[in-house]
Amino acid sequence: MKTMVHHDTIVALATPSGSGAIAIIRLSGADAIPIASKLFRSVSGKSIGKQLTHTVHFGHIVDGSRVLDEVLLTIFKNPNSYTGEDVIEISCHGSLYIQQEIIQLALRNGCRMANPGEFTLRAFLNGKLDLSQAEAVADLIASDNEASHKIAMQQMRGGFSSEIAKLREELLNFASLIELELDFSEEDVEFADRKQFAALLERISVVLKRLIDSFAVGNVIKNGIPIAIVGEPNVGKSTLLNAILNEERAIVSEIAGTTRDTIEDEISIGGIGFRFIDTAGIRETEDVVERIGVKKTFEKIDQAQVVIYLFDSTEYRAQSARFKVELEKIKHKYPQKPLIVLANKIDLIDDKQIAEIQNEIPEIQLLSAKAGFGVEQLTHTLLNLINTGALRNNETIITNTRHYDALLKAFEEIKKVRQGLETGLSGDLLAIDIRQALYHFGEITGEITNDDLLGNIFANFCIGK
Amino acid sequence: MKTMVHHDTIVALATPSGSGAIAIIRLSGADAIPIASKLFRSVSGKSIGKQLTHTVHFGHIVDGSRVLDEVLLTIFKNPNSYTGEDVIEISCHGSLYIQQEIIQLALRNGCRMANPGEFTLRAFLNGKLDLSQAEAVADLIASDNEASHKIAMQQMRGGFSSEIAKLREELLNFASLIELELDFSEEDVEFADRKQFAALLERISVVLKRLIDSFAVGNVIKNGIPIAIVGEPNVGKSTLLNAILNEERAIVSEIAGTTRDTIEDEISIGGIGFRFIDTAGIRETEDVVERIGVKKTFEKIDQAQVVIYLFDSTEYRAQSARFKVELEKIKHKYPQKPLIVLANKIDLIDDKQIAEIQNEIPEIQLLSAKAGFGVEQLTHTLLNLINTGALRNNETIITNTRHYDALLKAFEEIKKVRQGLETGLSGDLLAIDIRQALYHFGEITGEITNDDLLGNIFANFCIGK
Repeated sequence: MKTMVHHDTIVALATPSGSGAIAIIRLSGADAIPIASKLFRSVSGKSIGKQLTHTVHFGHIVDGSRVLDEVLLTIFKNPNSYTGEDVIEISCHGSLYIQQEIIQLALRNGCRMANPGEFTLRAFLNGKLDLSQAEAVADLIASDNEASHKIAMQQMRGGFSSEIAKLREELLNFASLIELELDFSEEDVEFADRKQFAALLERISVVLKRLIDSFAVGNVIKNGIPIAIVGEPNVGKSTLLNAILNEERAIVSEIAGTTRDTIEDEISIGGIGFRFIDTAGIRETEDVVERIGVKKTFEKIDQAQVVIYLFDSTEYRAQSARFKVELEKIKHKYPQKPLIVLANKIDLIDDKQIAEIQNEIPEIQLLSAKAGFGVEQLTHTLLNLINTGALRNNETIITNTRHYDALLKAFEEIKKVRQGLETGLSGDLLAIDIRQALYHFGEITGEITNDDLLGNIFANFCIGK
Repeated sequence: MKTMVHHDTIVALATPSGSGAIAIIRLSGADAIPIASKLFRSVSGKSIGKQLTHTVHFGHIVDGSRVLDEVLLTIFKNPNSYTGEDVIEISCHGSLYIQQEIIQLALRNGCRMANPGEFTLRAFLNGKLDLSQAEAVADLIASDNEASHKIAMQQMRGGFSSEIAKLREELLNFASLIELELDFSEEDVEFADRKQFAALLERISVVLKRLIDSFAVGNVIKNGIPIAIVGEPNVGKSTLLNAILNEERAIVSEIAGTTRDTIEDEISIGGIGFRFIDTAGIRETEDVVERIGVKKTFEKIDQAQVVIYLFDSTEYRAQSARFKVELEKIKHKYPQKPLIVLANKIDLIDDKQIAEIQNEIPEIQLLSAKAGFGVEQLTHTLLNLINTGALRNNETIITNTRHYDALLKAFEEIKKVRQGLETGLSGDLLAIDIRQALYHFGEITGEITNDDLLGNIFANFCIGK
């Protein structure tokens, strides 16, 4: 990604890798249509060069006299395409062999393999998207729950960058006025109304603060909330996770089997991702190997934001002393971490035993993961732990570390400008800090950019996007 | 698959499952366009109901006020679509979440989930494909090398069924003439020229015989040729397979990483699939567990069509006696099975040692899998073992067991007809055998069919095809 020249025509598989009914191979660039013409014979006999944009054509991909596949070919003409260039999409049968053969044929006819994210990079360079919108495309594809999808969608549709762009424009106006003053510096005029300017800076600070604060929520939404489950084998960890899954999935099961054996996985609850982290329990032991296990359990709790302590209530009478010691240990070590205590398999004990547990462990939540009892209460408890206020209010949320960094830096610069304004700093020094703030705003939307930055951003995309 | 009524509108993911740049969700049926209209808001504001077939439209998938994704929507109007019905393809961002949400939205708006192969089943029922062409679609998607792809492509384009259909028509003419004779049975006329009829039956027999014989080759091409590799750990089995892969892949590596750790896998050599079967070797042993291993090795050799015996030439001096005993054992047990003997790591021994091995094992092939030496010779040896004559001559090859069975039965019936003709069997009895032969021809192309048969065939398809 050293040079930004993109006159060549790129090709890549756009659909997920693997075999399926259909696969899409995408070409983009100045020669997309002439190259496709060499590979494609329309059944109607018409040349695709003469077809309208956004039309679909049935025909064959041919390599000399060899017919590779029956395909549908779609034409998108510059500038009305994803990349803004001429784009050809070939919808072929989804065998791995056919996918590879068609891509190789395109390579032999003058295309080159696309780099990761290069289609979206070209869309950015051709002004079809700003940089934060382009980044949202990758987030959108990676999103696996309602909340992260919503944030990515909002960002892709420009909600976040238009807010930044508006503030940037207002700030730019003031910067210009202040710089104009410098030209007249000997005359001591003030074109920029200092009071209005202070009000603008105040407004910008509030917005930046809000966006910066949203990063904590955004990060949790994007990456899932880590929850450590402390509990020994056979207390019902997998059953519990499958019960949560059943509660959530509804029609999803029709689309793909979703039962799982491992508990180290992410589950979406009420649109929020939760990452469950399996632990081996923290039972006191003399055994060296088991002691290592206990150490690992604590390391995993360190990473978690929430701890679930799960025990088998049929073992309660025999083991209650141990359970209480272990709970105390967790509370002592992690006083700030939310702790949920679950007594599982309560369908197997009688009411007297239940009363006993409730009496001795007041915070207990009763559960029968197998029967589905107590699962709904648990999901409510988990959701209540999360501050989703921002989400509900349809506000912009920052999930991207790069944006977060830029916003933090912009915030610092704005703070300096405000201090400068209060202490009557000279216009030329003010202007420097304003330019710095503007620079960080521009980093987000891509007005300010460089090859390395773009390279880093698009390297995280998949090939074909 | 009990009823063949298909007035309802089906929906499924058409691209491989997983996340990628793009995914395609396909709707087919009488209500595909009205249902899509409910989900889709065109950016141009135009109603898709009024658009031309084979046109693409940019817009949003919406669920009430919620925007689910920016998509491209393609319209195919009855009868100019894959299924012959109205078809809508939605090209969305390839996140799992978006795929599921759009499918669920379509389900809520009146679609139902497609059964496996139901799009192709509808194409067959609507006369867009005959049955053997429909079956070829699944083969085409499953094909992972040049040979199996070529056969599936040929079959999908109707090469095989048109040959069968032509013979069937000629036979049908004679059947009609002979049945006509029955109406005039008291007058003892012969409308059907017995000599011409005998010639036709001869021709049909030759074609059927050829097709039936091609099944052995076809089966090998479709399923890959099983090769047992006999060799102990660390003699270089994985290195050898990666060397073969390197020799073959060329540009493929740019498309997908192809290095493999396991050797139990299929590799395409010169367009033919080879399935390599790992074995533990056959070293004589007292150990019970190892003896079981040796037994398993022989079971695996039983399944293979070719045996490769691979040893480490740096161990030759110390172990030559054992190697020779093991080779004799294989030759004795499998006198008919091609055996390739490979001395690996010859880059680590000197010329004198090489001469020694060549002297004592005349059929030895020298190899340095690591350096790539001897790999090309090995791939040639493997390809020479296969009779690919039929392939090279562009002849029709049968790979489908159902077709093979129907052809065998048709062949038997034709044989009966020929015998009947020779022995002067009466027209009414001849007619019965001819009808039976015609029935089996019809089974292949789908003129003769029933729900159970169709159910069986399409159950093997993936959903979305």
